Amino acid sequence: MNRQPVAVFDSGLGGLSVVRHLRRLLPHEDIVYFGDTARVPYGIKSQPPVVHFALENARFLQQFDPKLIAVACNTVSALALPEVAEAVGVPVVGVLEPGARAAATLAVRGGAILLLGTEATVSSGAYEAALTRLAPGVRVIGVPCPLFVPLVEEGRVASDPIVAAVAREYLAPLRGQDVRVAILGCTHYPLLRDAISAALGVGVEIVDSGRETSHAIRDALAAADALSDPQHVGSIRCFVSDNPARFGRIGSRFLEEPIDAVELVPPEAYVAAALDAARQELGL
Amino acid sequence: MNRQPVAVFDSGLGGLSVVRHLRRLLPHEDIVYFGDTARVPYGIKSQPPVVHFALENARFLQQFDPKLIAVACNTVSALALPEVAEAVGVPVVGVLEPGARAAATLAVRGGAILLLGTEATVSSGAYEAALTRLAPGVRVIGVPCPLFVPLVEEGRVASDPIVAAVAREYLAPLRGQDVRVAILGCTHYPLLRDAISAALGVGVEIVDSGRETSHAIRDALAAADALSDPQHVGSIRCFVSDNPARFGRIGSRFLEEPIDAVELVPPEAYVAAALDAARQELGL
Repeated sequence: MNRQPVAVFDSGLGGLSVVRHLRRLLPHEDIVYFGDTARVPYGIKSQPPVVHFALENARFLQQFDPKLIAVACNTVSALALPEVAEAVGVPVVGVLEPGARAAATLAVRGGAILLLGTEATVSSGAYEAALTRLAPGVRVIGVPCPLFVPLVEEGRVASDPIVAAVAREYLAPLRGQDVRVAILGCTHYPLLRDAISAALGVGVEIVDSGRETSHAIRDALAAADALSDPQHVGSIRCFVSDNPARFGRIGSRFLEEPIDAVELVPPEAYVAAALDAARQELGL
Repeated sequence: MNRQPVAVFDSGLGGLSVVRHLRRLLPHEDIVYFGDTARVPYGIKSQPPVVHFALENARFLQQFDPKLIAVACNTVSALALPEVAEAVGVPVVGVLEPGARAAATLAVRGGAILLLGTEATVSSGAYEAALTRLAPGVRVIGVPCPLFVPLVEEGRVASDPIVAAVAREYLAPLRGQDVRVAILGCTHYPLLRDAISAALGVGVEIVDSGRETSHAIRDALAAADALSDPQHVGSIRCFVSDNPARFGRIGSRFLEEPIDAVELVPPEAYVAAALDAARQELGL
């Protein structure tokens, strides 16, 4: 039994769709969440700043002495997971491997795997690498869907006519390509799941990387005998680097529960936390 | 005659739509442009990080000894112009005041002024403040159009059916509200001008803040006798904080000329430039 919190970070509020699954699966865990809303989105950025920002986020969360850090961001999971894992002294779980694993299991029956994600996630090739390792020879089709994130953040839902039109434009050309599995490789996409599914047509199984990740976190904690005790009522504490009101308002749609208080961390604080940690490591 | 460059910065590549007008109006000027593509977009951010980032950008450009710094970003112009003007020792021109001035002139015939911009620009109230100062009693209707930026960045043009549908959804409800002038209060919006105009219907004059700003820069340089000599062929040099290839590819649509070379500045460099400048000021 272990009452240390599970720490989670994301470029913004999308990671709350992972936390939603985590809260249902592990209701006894305390969760500390950091959303880097001052520098969101990461999905159009290249590797160096994503690594730089991810390390600052992870360092900030270390002050809460977490038993595990979950990287609830597909872009960071694709571009910076080894760097984060090396920098922090606790187990790190990303969203990419659990999602790829679930898709690979479903793909044993043949057909292509469709990867939907941001520009950075798709062009990184990280999902393809994981998938071809897990299911050698599998055909992977990557499709960046840049408008899905701003559509969700604007408050639109799967039944919105503009969402449906965009989903059709991105995905209808894939009909007839024998797609059997589609990975929602961005934490915003589960909110548009019905529109994505409708545009792909029947017979395509949808893998929600966030849901799979919550299971991976449970398994990692159970294996290390680090689950919290079943009498404890888990809490959630949210920090952001900008705009707490917007985070609370839009984020509650991802979390599917109200977000009571969101704490603002100014840029100086997480940059300073990262500098302090680096100095300590170097013995300065 | 003055051969120092004109420096321009923006949160990303949108500012190039301002530079396009500047290049046509002042073909003898050298231009140095910085796009903060590592931290784009600013339009969903609050004032403190926007001020913080804007100061770092301005400090970075000071090393080129510019005769004027143009803030080609509506969000920075709305949230951080006094801070930038105070921090640098050269004249600073933003996009807000020239756009507001043009709209106020057109609004003397009555009717409402429509302000289209990002969430941050519209909610700042900065355009409203300038407009009511310039045209007391004028009615201003602010409409944030969050999807326009990602639509443009995805390569879509005004004739795209999804652009047309989004523009209609945002703007058709304004018909019948006696709108006479619409300000394109974001440097991305001129690329969707025809779709915006069609959604608003006939009789609405469109003000492009970027075009007005190029005239304000010319006037400021002329008044200070700081224009370059007419024998000189002006150059343009572009720096970005991330993803130079993407900047060159998408940016040339804004500039309407090819962008030959884009230089990458890592985050350490502009953060360090800002720190050095602050240290010098403090005499450290």
